[in-house]
Amino acid sequence: MSHLYFKVDVLEQFCRDAFQRFGFSEKESKIITDVLLTSDRYGIESHGMQRLSRYHKGIESGMIKVDAVSEVIFETPVSAVIDGHDGMGQLIGYQAMKKAIDKAKKSGMAIVTVRNSNHYGIAGYYARMACDKGLIGLSFTNSEAIMVPTNAKQAMLGSNPIAIAVPAEPYPFFFDASTTVVTRGKLEMYRKAEKPLPDGWALDQDGNPSNDADQVLRNIVSRAGGGIMPLGENEEISGSHKGYGYGMICELFTSILSQGLTSNHTHTGGKGGTCHGFIAIDPRAFGEPEKISQHFSAFLQELREAPKADGRERIFTHGEKEALAMERVETEGIAVDQKTLVEMKQMSEYLGMDFSQYFGRLFLEDTGYESIYSG
Amino acid sequence: MSHLYFKVDVLEQFCRDAFQRFGFSEKESKIITDVLLTSDRYGIESHGMQRLSRYHKGIESGMIKVDAVSEVIFETPVSAVIDGHDGMGQLIGYQAMKKAIDKAKKSGMAIVTVRNSNHYGIAGYYARMACDKGLIGLSFTNSEAIMVPTNAKQAMLGSNPIAIAVPAEPYPFFFDASTTVVTRGKLEMYRKAEKPLPDGWALDQDGNPSNDADQVLRNIVSRAGGGIMPLGENEEISGSHKGYGYGMICELFTSILSQGLTSNHTHTGGKGGTCHGFIAIDPRAFGEPEKISQHFSAFLQELREAPKADGRERIFTHGEKEALAMERVETEGIAVDQKTLVEMKQMSEYLGMDFSQYFGRLFLEDTGYESIYSG
Repeated sequence: MSHLYFKVDVLEQFCRDAFQRFGFSEKESKIITDVLLTSDRYGIESHGMQRLSRYHKGIESGMIKVDAVSEVIFETPVSAVIDGHDGMGQLIGYQAMKKAIDKAKKSGMAIVTVRNSNHYGIAGYYARMACDKGLIGLSFTNSEAIMVPTNAKQAMLGSNPIAIAVPAEPYPFFFDASTTVVTRGKLEMYRKAEKPLPDGWALDQDGNPSNDADQVLRNIVSRAGGGIMPLGENEEISGSHKGYGYGMICELFTSILSQGLTSNHTHTGGKGGTCHGFIAIDPRAFGEPEKISQHFSAFLQELREAPKADGRERIFTHGEKEALAMERVETEGIAVDQKTLVEMKQMSEYLGMDFSQYFGRLFLEDTGYESIYSG
Repeated sequence: MSHLYFKVDVLEQFCRDAFQRFGFSEKESKIITDVLLTSDRYGIESHGMQRLSRYHKGIESGMIKVDAVSEVIFETPVSAVIDGHDGMGQLIGYQAMKKAIDKAKKSGMAIVTVRNSNHYGIAGYYARMACDKGLIGLSFTNSEAIMVPTNAKQAMLGSNPIAIAVPAEPYPFFFDASTTVVTRGKLEMYRKAEKPLPDGWALDQDGNPSNDADQVLRNIVSRAGGGIMPLGENEEISGSHKGYGYGMICELFTSILSQGLTSNHTHTGGKGGTCHGFIAIDPRAFGEPEKISQHFSAFLQELREAPKADGRERIFTHGEKEALAMERVETEGIAVDQKTLVEMKQMSEYLGMDFSQYFGRLFLEDTGYESIYSG
């Protein structure tokens, strides 16, 4: 799988134009694009450009309704429940976190839950929205069932990420992770590379451990059973019930408090039905924000400076890798793999866009890129 | 290690009287006792009677100040920061969660953080306090550093449990777990049994995996390095950075938002300095509590009824094991191991209590128990 590198503004213009052609407004297209490219900027390739085809398919099939207007169905000064009416997840998520931030600024903290949405990109984007305003942000989403609870053989929970972002220096604390041991994207990488899965990741249709990425992924698609283990694998001795528990916390702040579909009922009958949750907390509710940030930053620095294990070079604090990736993207551009480029080409043809207008012949000649899509 | 079984009310009277002799009021002694016995009732032996000697030592050494009066140092309608002034953790925790509950009932949700406290028993007790009032409760505590962050060789975070309790039928959802793969108590059990530790639990002083419970525990006590791995072990491939991340979330809601001591600075120079965090959320902020509880209960039932993996008999939802343990305690009593009984005997002698008044000769003759403490 080889990658080509593109400047952020080229991909940005392409995405914005594409989403406008799908029928989103200029402002909406800008938000969706920002969510997707933030993922690539953070080095999380799986949730950036690579996901364009998923949104393309979702819109084409009618699962994602371009004209949906989300509706606040319940509200207090510290909370709200939003019905997304099957709209684009990024737009619903953006609106919901904005509401949580506004309420938290007035009340100190707020939780907004969402039902009837669709995939909203990286959970961390919304947590960062709050953090960029000086607040603590948390973001949760359920998703198509893929996590097999301890002792089960059927996936009942989604990858159910929990993301949190907290103001700190020199960069925010930023933790965004699925509550499964890995995400489906990791299994797909192993399948592409034709490598056996590491132990402790996946289960076959009978609930037994499996190293066969292709089989596990086919079972997931056909809902034949099996799936991915919770963080902590599939035995209590390694903490399986804990990963399953964190997955449940995610379900609580998404499907339960919005009274929407739990992961095991999403993505059936042509409906997404994804649920999200957003929490914003103003550190001013606990004292002087600068002092709190300094206190946290000092601890993060102690962690980075702690003695390293034999053979380990660096202790990372959460958010450090994303900060490094952002620096890299500034100079190198965003890496997009060839398969994704082919999908982007197909999408642009579907939308009647001129692909070469964005990615040009000069680029192609320099990189041998033409062969990818002229074939 | 053999156990003796005692009726709850016998242990209850013993503890209440003991804590009163330590200088706590009748009401305070009742609260401390309830926290400890709730742990035993839930089948979490490590945090019940077994911990009495730790409190005894803490009070005797002056780390726990019996006369401390905790102080609210910052407050808003949705939040508070409490300085525990080195008092008894259970009393400070009880007061703090009570405040969070009161605020949540008025405002919809609240977060109360605590600094300068001591060990407060099971985190779940306080989460259940909120749940018993129809609210969602969360409880966090940091503790003496024992978790080695990914790539480090020195413990920097505590076992840092996160507990959550949510109203549901037929019993609440109740999840209370350390963010380390296991707690120190588990290592102590392996040492007592002279069994090698399972892979993926502990690290030696150089940060290499270790199966030697005795060595790891001695290193922890002498602060020679090493400790327990985060949930997800010590490699990113198994999700080490995720367990470390959940440990950081615990640190945020305890030491950071109270501006207290982070785990790596607690328990030095004769001071505990433990920090806690308490969150209460009123489901009324999201709609009708009954409907939310029904929705959640239906999902929990689906989980219990999901197809089982080969060779597995039962899928548990969180809180089910505690509910079963409580039923068992009703008929069987609470199991207390002999070593703990010896410590209780020593404590009663220190306090000038008549041990046999509580545990009687009849009991002793029936069980051969006398030999334990008459020697």
